[in-house]
Amino acid sequence: MTVTNDIDLGQLLADTETEILRVVGDRDPSTSGVYEMIRYHLGLDGSAGPRGKRMRPLLGLLAYASIAGEHARALPGAAAVELGHNFSLVHDDIEDGDVERRHRTTLWALHGVPQAINTGDLIFSLSRVALHRLTDLGFSDAKVLRLMRLYDETCVMLCEGQYIDIAASASDEPMTVELYFDMIGRKTAALISASIEAGALLATDDETVITGYRRFGWALGIAFQLNDDLLGIWGQEQKTGKVPTDVARHKKTLPVMYAFQHAGPEDRDRLAELYAQPEPGDEQIAEVVAILERSGAQDFTRAEAQRYRDDCLAELDALTVVEPEAREKLKGIIVGVISA
Amino acid sequence: MTVTNDIDLGQLLADTETEILRVVGDRDPSTSGVYEMIRYHLGLDGSAGPRGKRMRPLLGLLAYASIAGEHARALPGAAAVELGHNFSLVHDDIEDGDVERRHRTTLWALHGVPQAINTGDLIFSLSRVALHRLTDLGFSDAKVLRLMRLYDETCVMLCEGQYIDIAASASDEPMTVELYFDMIGRKTAALISASIEAGALLATDDETVITGYRRFGWALGIAFQLNDDLLGIWGQEQKTGKVPTDVARHKKTLPVMYAFQHAGPEDRDRLAELYAQPEPGDEQIAEVVAILERSGAQDFTRAEAQRYRDDCLAELDALTVVEPEAREKLKGIIVGVISA
Repeated sequence: MTVTNDIDLGQLLADTETEILRVVGDRDPSTSGVYEMIRYHLGLDGSAGPRGKRMRPLLGLLAYASIAGEHARALPGAAAVELGHNFSLVHDDIEDGDVERRHRTTLWALHGVPQAINTGDLIFSLSRVALHRLTDLGFSDAKVLRLMRLYDETCVMLCEGQYIDIAASASDEPMTVELYFDMIGRKTAALISASIEAGALLATDDETVITGYRRFGWALGIAFQLNDDLLGIWGQEQKTGKVPTDVARHKKTLPVMYAFQHAGPEDRDRLAELYAQPEPGDEQIAEVVAILERSGAQDFTRAEAQRYRDDCLAELDALTVVEPEAREKLKGIIVGVISA
Repeated sequence: MTVTNDIDLGQLLADTETEILRVVGDRDPSTSGVYEMIRYHLGLDGSAGPRGKRMRPLLGLLAYASIAGEHARALPGAAAVELGHNFSLVHDDIEDGDVERRHRTTLWALHGVPQAINTGDLIFSLSRVALHRLTDLGFSDAKVLRLMRLYDETCVMLCEGQYIDIAASASDEPMTVELYFDMIGRKTAALISASIEAGALLATDDETVITGYRRFGWALGIAFQLNDDLLGIWGQEQKTGKVPTDVARHKKTLPVMYAFQHAGPEDRDRLAELYAQPEPGDEQIAEVVAILERSGAQDFTRAEAQRYRDDCLAELDALTVVEPEAREKLKGIIVGVISA
């Protein structure tokens, strides 16, 4: 086992992108157009545009490296989770009607809904193709199959979470805090956790270790989403590069769900009124924010985010790792990503 | 090896549906709604509505049975291909704006585009989950993995074919006959061929046999599509239960592509004019059909359909099967499905 003493995140990123390009390169002249669309969406079309943080593959590679001491053999898994994440983004953009992502026009806005649905499906298919290279790298069939089962069950959860989300958006009833946690577990935590579990799974046969990584990943996933909810309302543009728009877009995030359940009756009615307005102005947005703060929704969400972040760091510390530097890099990502 | 002397297609169908219901049954109360949507689309919601021919799983089960003498162990593969086919139908209906399929309202028309895209994604994910039961049935990891690789590459081809189709619909240029065959190979023949190859793959390790079944399936897939093209223009409602609407819907099928390439200059211009009309009347449709007949497009398509059907029957006859009754049933399906 080679132990790398110098883990370079830039290198991990570059290697991940090379691995992704293996599967999203042109196959035939008659279909090159759709592969161009995929590379455009991924920011791998040679433009110097922003291309996403690649958080999931980095987490997976670091989890693998923390046990195996190197990252290269886990690259097909890293490519698969990034492609899986991006298939869901392409479809989410259609479902949400978003015309921009990472300051670029979204696929459906450029090429129409039919082509974008199908391109998402192709990215989904290619994410599986990526995994088959694990066999070429010498992993046992049993290992590859177990990873595929994890990935398949994760994709099911992803779609289930999305179903709950879309159903809630279409409904007049606010969802309960309980259902909210059910939703983000499936929609966000499942794939983040699976990315990390996949890294561990490829590196070891020790079930206790694998379970530890999964639990670390799950807590991280929940903390990540709660942090995102906070930033979507109280984030500062100069820090995040994004204007907080969740209230204007009526997103049903934890602070809002909490307020619907726990604010006083007057505030609750007013919140329902404000959330029913198709295009709320700045004043109305400010009023919503005031209700969320008054009802304790901000404090509750922050406390929950911190609780899950602490859980996740504690799980990480409890892991027996071979490569402490990988663990430090994991911590760095967690602290960098969960800032609210 | 048990040799069944009495292959009952009704039993194969019922067993396939039971196998599908294993994976599309409710998992949790919070997500039961989306599983209901899936069962509705599949015609497995308890209503007595029409539910699709289940051609792909039947072909796969018969291919398996023709070698193995029984069908039960191949059921997870049959469920997977039927689910894979249906994921693509759910997305096709959105992409084509179709509000009805099999005399029922389509999912997107009932639940909106966002929910329907996501339900298609879930069906896609569940098609993989179905395959994992092969492991529980005792197939080796190597076998299951090989089947998955076939399935994954097939899904890639399916999306590639769909890309060519959507791009052609959006373009003013007619596609060439060559590109048309490229498209239907990916869009139609790939999954039909894979369904049959999967059956063979599960039953034997003999590569020559597997290749034979694949070639049989590929020829059948092309013949099936060409037959569909003929029925979409010249089909008789009393025979097919469908009004031929391909001309009215400007579908770019082989007869039309052939005529664009081979009709005289006047007919070609007139065809382009007629195909540019958003809502052609009966007279204009009749004019298109007359051009197709005059240019030899109907004869060409019929000759090609027959050539591929003859190829497919010859490939089937060349196979060494253990269970001749399964081969007869396969022939019965081919003759029943390819009628034009």
